[in-house]
Amino acid sequence: MSEAASPHSLPVPKVLAFDVFGTVVDWHTGIAREVAALLPDVDADAFALRWRDGYAPAMASTMASGEFRVLDDLHMDILRSIAPVSLSEAQLIDLNRAWYRLDPWPEAVAALTRLRTRFVLTPLSNGGIGLLTYMAKRAGLPWDVVLSAEVFGAYKPDPRTYTGVARVLGVKPGEVMMVAAHQTDLDAAQDAGLLTAYIERPHELGATRVKDVSPSPRHPLHFRDLAALADYFGC
Amino acid sequence: MSEAASPHSLPVPKVLAFDVFGTVVDWHTGIAREVAALLPDVDADAFALRWRDGYAPAMASTMASGEFRVLDDLHMDILRSIAPVSLSEAQLIDLNRAWYRLDPWPEAVAALTRLRTRFVLTPLSNGGIGLLTYMAKRAGLPWDVVLSAEVFGAYKPDPRTYTGVARVLGVKPGEVMMVAAHQTDLDAAQDAGLLTAYIERPHELGATRVKDVSPSPRHPLHFRDLAALADYFGC
Repeated sequence: MSEAASPHSLPVPKVLAFDVFGTVVDWHTGIAREVAALLPDVDADAFALRWRDGYAPAMASTMASGEFRVLDDLHMDILRSIAPVSLSEAQLIDLNRAWYRLDPWPEAVAALTRLRTRFVLTPLSNGGIGLLTYMAKRAGLPWDVVLSAEVFGAYKPDPRTYTGVARVLGVKPGEVMMVAAHQTDLDAAQDAGLLTAYIERPHELGATRVKDVSPSPRHPLHFRDLAALADYFGC
Repeated sequence: MSEAASPHSLPVPKVLAFDVFGTVVDWHTGIAREVAALLPDVDADAFALRWRDGYAPAMASTMASGEFRVLDDLHMDILRSIAPVSLSEAQLIDLNRAWYRLDPWPEAVAALTRLRTRFVLTPLSNGGIGLLTYMAKRAGLPWDVVLSAEVFGAYKPDPRTYTGVARVLGVKPGEVMMVAAHQTDLDAAQDAGLLTAYIERPHELGATRVKDVSPSPRHPLHFRDLAALADYFGC
């Protein structure tokens, strides 16, 4: 974290809400691995990036339609548009579930387990309740509750998702800290009244492609990983 | 369980959904204990029963109004109507949280921990997401996800709650087993297509008042407690 942010000068949250894809789990490695296994002739790295690139436009069009659809359905629409025609329906359904089988970043489970001794931990992800539940069960993510865009009928960065966490857990927005590897997620959370913490994930887009993880003046709590966040809170 | 129900002749679920008040936690003892501590001159046993008696009519009027309200608010309305005027607002708020601080039945945590190795475990309670989350954290209930009437905008026995569990977890209604100490809950779950298992809790209404726990022909899976359910599944 930056030296300007003393542990004693900032408000302490009661609830930590975590972005999941990129922040807690390594989606690029997991998706590319399953693509490579199923489609050895395809550039798995590029395929993973294309699949993820379809995500923001699909969410935007869902929100514009006024009818909420769960992320699994958006993932499947994108997958159908980029997958080779050789894949069967059963293979498409199974590959779409690769998002359920993502591995956590190496320090994540131990760090969350430490943080859980002091805070209520929840995901706040655009993944659906089912996706997040099966992912957590497989990966051992120790959530206290599984909150999702699906609970609130809106995708991040809609403010209803951030204030919704506070409402259902009976705390003030300023008692919830959003933890994410994406500055735009944190910007929207802060606009909704939440505390924020940034986690560097320089290899979110793949080991060979380094993401900009520069600090933002809006989010002075800036950590290398989730273990550093647990250190900061003395957990 | 009854001898007629062989483990090999009945469908096996993927998800177990548990009623909470009475089935997993002992609400009468917990509420009466906190009432007795705060109001030594009040009949704590009768107070706990009166509070709980207000619950069904309050849910019915909420559902009739068409506007969902979280159970905490219904509990508070009932509490205000039965509490001595001597209690301060802060005391009322704290006493209302006694529902967050209920203890599990003695075998519940160990039995759920066994069942969790094989099934996805969720509460399906009329308690709110927050109530169920704080209760689980304090009591060590090992849920994989916290589903609640609040997620579905309807109280049990509305069929949307039962089918909602299947929908958000991506399974068929017949792959979810509702586990409850109340035959009416199981009747509604079965009408919605779920599997059912009854748990005897003869002292749900207090140690001196024995509840009828007779088997129902509609629900042949009938167990003494959650440990017997785990035994049945060989967990």
